[in-house]
Amino acid sequence: MFLPSAVFVNGKFCKNPKLVGADDFFASGFNSPGNTNNPFGSNVETVDVNKIPGLNTLGLSLVRIDYAPNGLNPPHSHPRGSEILAVAVGSLLVGFVSSNNQVDGGNRLFTKVLNQGDVFVFPIGLIHFELNVGRTPAVAFTVLNSQNPGITTIANAVFGSDPPINSDILARAFKLDKKIVENLQRKF
Amino acid sequence: MFLPSAVFVNGKFCKNPKLVGADDFFASGFNSPGNTNNPFGSNVETVDVNKIPGLNTLGLSLVRIDYAPNGLNPPHSHPRGSEILAVAVGSLLVGFVSSNNQVDGGNRLFTKVLNQGDVFVFPIGLIHFELNVGRTPAVAFTVLNSQNPGITTIANAVFGSDPPINSDILARAFKLDKKIVENLQRKF
Amino acid sequence: MFLPSAVFVNGKFCKNPKLVGADDFFASGFNSPGNTNNPFGSNVETVDVNKIPGLNTLGLSLVRIDYAPNGLNPPHSHPRGSEILAVAVGSLLVGFVSSNNQVDGGNRLFTKVLNQGDVFVFPIGLIHFELNVGRTPAVAFTVLNSQNPGITTIANAVFGSDPPINSDILARAFKLDKKIVENLQRKF
Amino acid sequence: MFLPSAVFVNGKFCKNPKLVGADDFFASGFNSPGNTNNPFGSNVETVDVNKIPGLNTLGLSLVRIDYAPNGLNPPHSHPRGSEILAVAVGSLLVGFVSSNNQVDGGNRLFTKVLNQGDVFVFPIGLIHFELNVGRTPAVAFTVLNSQNPGITTIANAVFGSDPPINSDILARAFKLDKKIVENLQRKF
Amino acid sequence: MFLPSAVFVNGKFCKNPKLVGADDFFASGFNSPGNTNNPFGSNVETVDVNKIPGLNTLGLSLVRIDYAPNGLNPPHSHPRGSEILAVAVGSLLVGFVSSNNQVDGGNRLFTKVLNQGDVFVFPIGLIHFELNVGRTPAVAFTVLNSQNPGITTIANAVFGSDPPINSDILARAFKLDKKIVENLQRKF
Amino acid sequence: MFLPSAVFVNGKFCKNPKLVGADDFFASGFNSPGNTNNPFGSNVETVDVNKIPGLNTLGLSLVRIDYAPNGLNPPHSHPRGSEILAVAVGSLLVGFVSSNNQVDGGNRLFTKVLNQGDVFVFPIGLIHFELNVGRTPAVAFTVLNSQNPGITTIANAVFGSDPPINSDILARAFKLDKKIVENLQRKF
Repeated sequence: MFLPSAVFVNGKFCKNPKLVGADDFFASGFNSPGNTNNPFGSNVETVDVNKIPGLNTLGLSLVRIDYAPNGLNPPHSHPRGSEILAVAVGSLLVGFVSSNNQVDGGNRLFTKVLNQGDVFVFPIGLIHFELNVGRTPAVAFTVLNSQNPGITTIANAVFGSDPPINSDILARAFKLDKKIVENLQRKF
Repeated sequence: MFLPSAVFVNGKFCKNPKLVGADDFFASGFNSPGNTNNPFGSNVETVDVNKIPGLNTLGLSLVRIDYAPNGLNPPHSHPRGSEILAVAVGSLLVGFVSSNNQVDGGNRLFTKVLNQGDVFVFPIGLIHFELNVGRTPAVAFTVLNSQNPGITTIANAVFGSDPPINSDILARAFKLDKKIVENLQRKF
Repeated sequence: MFLPSAVFVNGKFCKNPKLVGADDFFASGFNSPGNTNNPFGSNVETVDVNKIPGLNTLGLSLVRIDYAPNGLNPPHSHPRGSEILAVAVGSLLVGFVSSNNQVDGGNRLFTKVLNQGDVFVFPIGLIHFELNVGRTPAVAFTVLNSQNPGITTIANAVFGSDPPINSDILARAFKLDKKIVENLQRKF
Repeated sequence: MFLPSAVFVNGKFCKNPKLVGADDFFASGFNSPGNTNNPFGSNVETVDVNKIPGLNTLGLSLVRIDYAPNGLNPPHSHPRGSEILAVAVGSLLVGFVSSNNQVDGGNRLFTKVLNQGDVFVFPIGLIHFELNVGRTPAVAFTVLNSQNPGITTIANAVFGSDPPINSDILARAFKLDKKIVENLQRKF
Repeated sequence: MFLPSAVFVNGKFCKNPKLVGADDFFASGFNSPGNTNNPFGSNVETVDVNKIPGLNTLGLSLVRIDYAPNGLNPPHSHPRGSEILAVAVGSLLVGFVSSNNQVDGGNRLFTKVLNQGDVFVFPIGLIHFELNVGRTPAVAFTVLNSQNPGITTIANAVFGSDPPINSDILARAFKLDKKIVENLQRKF
Repeated sequence: MFLPSAVFVNGKFCKNPKLVGADDFFASGFNSPGNTNNPFGSNVETVDVNKIPGLNTLGLSLVRIDYAPNGLNPPHSHPRGSEILAVAVGSLLVGFVSSNNQVDGGNRLFTKVLNQGDVFVFPIGLIHFELNVGRTPAVAFTVLNSQNPGITTIANAVFGSDPPINSDILARAFKLDKKIVENLQRKF
């Protein structure tokens, strides 16, 4: 029987175990620099269950991030996974913001300059970012503990959603002039 | 022995079961309208494990939200819980934005006008908002499936963190003039 | 390909994410009083994953309960979810019984009269009930942290199962005359 | 430092791993018949985290049940664990009742006579029972997938709670004369 | 519609709840001694979700192990479940080895002679074994908290995999002469 | 109050959130090659919750592995975590062995030569290894989805436990001469 990819279950269908091979646990190409020739000067390459079928149910995915000098991975969050980041090359300014919760101090920024070989942790669902503060390209590898952690780039989700969020809402939420909001919405 | 509140374990210490009473599973005051006399015209009142000790380990917390006419609960996310919202009084425009993930369509806005008795769901970690679009005050009750779901109000976390996020980062991420960013950072 | 509803997986099949819309996260009608014209004088209306497909995997379901004066939601338990209840209108006597476990005190009743705006918690799997002790109809909203929490109404499960439980067993377990048990079994 | 047993965390404090020994994973005495000289003619002996400290966090507990001829383990449920039962000696009539849920058929009794070497499963939170239908004593071993599954014996929780449930509530819920209920409450 | 067994989802497809019967929660034959007429003098009989469909999602499986005098259940581990073992007949020498982790003491052997009625616990993923040290056949029952816990018999996985592990690797890892390794690989 | 490190709870005590700083989410030194001047020619450096307190409850830990030419990370398993490995430098032969389970094919070896930038997955609890098959030193980074995954090096756990496993057991299990086993036990 043919089960087309248009049928969805939670996670993924499993392959017949007898037909599973080593390639189902494998991906390649993580040594190739990503193309950072874009406005942010950064590139995110993800290996998750869509690329490694054997990750199904295992709760892991891997990401390579390239940063041109001054390259930025802009503020974003992962709705379904915590993240651990290691700097392979270069220097990064990284940070995340704790939740509003008073007991946590309220929107505290935890920030650090990382050099090659340094490691940092971003707890699940919190907004975080990385900026290349070195003079050369930088590379980081991160792992998330979900086979499908999702990513919400804050500015895109807020100002670039499809359809757009009502501009009055955004003007008030961000204390911005409505014209600026509408201008932003055209940009994103 | 005295265990001061400055000692933290995951979750909470449990009371001696023999000393637990009905009041440990109880909270009151959810019929009192919250004070919406503030810039957003909304008020969020949370009952979580800090108010109901018996919620410890049970994975639930309850929220009452009051909205003045045109009151806004601005875009925010909960890092550790999904949410179900029911409108008790009035009419709300609600929405959430899916993650960037291409397979999900990429930053899609799911939005709906809700009237009294309507119910809506916000999946874990996604940015969402509610706006009172009726002429009268509105009230909603929501429940999250965590005893401590956290809340990240996007504009506050981005522009109002302590210490502030580098304004260059925000200017680039949000495609805003740096002066506007610094102005925003003073406001939040 | 046609996947008939007679195919079951754990939870539910997921819709094609590209075809999902706001209505998949929406339900209406929770403002309509339930019909309490029945022997218990109460009515339970549930919104779970069967009504809101978007609840799939999110671990939440919502319930509206209406109580006529003196209306009773008889002792029951939810095998797969804890519950948080808020009184929207009226006054309820509520209670749950802890498990036999000696360390818990052994079958302790935790009980409380709740008024409008009060909140109470029923831990997973424990027997609980609510009785309208006011002179007017009452309404409560509850949320359970499961998309399919199940409900076991004790008297129905014990005396009204299909097929019936051996009446000797019930007579001994409940210290009732066997004729009374058989009479109960006819009623349920 | 002395940490008295009056301090409670979720689960249990862990022993210093360096002081843990084989006896922390061990219990004995499961070959001794329990004393079934009681009204139900059955005896339940539990080995959980309170007896085997090494079970902490492992999600397992073990139970030996002895049944005199005609001995009954009366209808009960476990709020926090599913159960698998194996008959070591004798013959048991066992059963459980599914939840009210229409899709499940509604309060269906799943019942079976088990002989030595037979195995049966009771899903989490559902009401179940075992009756010795052989002429000789019977023994069963069951395991639950929780280090502290709890047990709610239905009749005791309903008619024998401390303090008692309002007898009006029980009379209505069980369609019993109030005098019978109050009589039952004296018995339990 | 026909869903052939060659279609795999995580866990198992569920039967139509209306067609489920008591036999879906039942297995028999655990009173029959296993055939221990083999080199190890032991036999393992497993009842998991493949034999009891009703175990699907419940996180339990049951095992009967028979040991001839001097019978050995050789060192193995279960990748997806902790185990609790009860001795039904006879005397067993059992043991497990903690992980290398220094804080745990490093490869500590926790070992014990068990007699009839004794209980022991093997934490998830750790290598363990049982040896019949009595003069008569022995029987143990164990339960794992997974519907599909898996089993890795160490010697078979190491020296008997298909295809074989490079013999240089094994010679170095086990500090064995390469010829001995290759000889072992022929045996397994 | 002073809570000495000799008090253990599951996971770790949490720091007072108000005293938490960025350094609690940080570790350094992952750019320094490990010392591979040892019999296996490999070195494993782990960053887990013991080094990064902020990992507490987040379910992640990170490992750097250095391999001299021909360096071997010998067969081992992690009892509490799946692993994803990325090759930063060099070429590795990697493999894992599936469990005995017939439906899985029975002790199948999944093996692959990985080059720089390649990624491989080792499912929880299964035995796996890596061998440097290049002419130069190699480096890999791996992440496990547990804050304390544990590691069982097979040969050490089997032949080097403290106290040693009975040599008869090992001789039979590994089909080795008892003298060879005892010799191995002296080596490990």
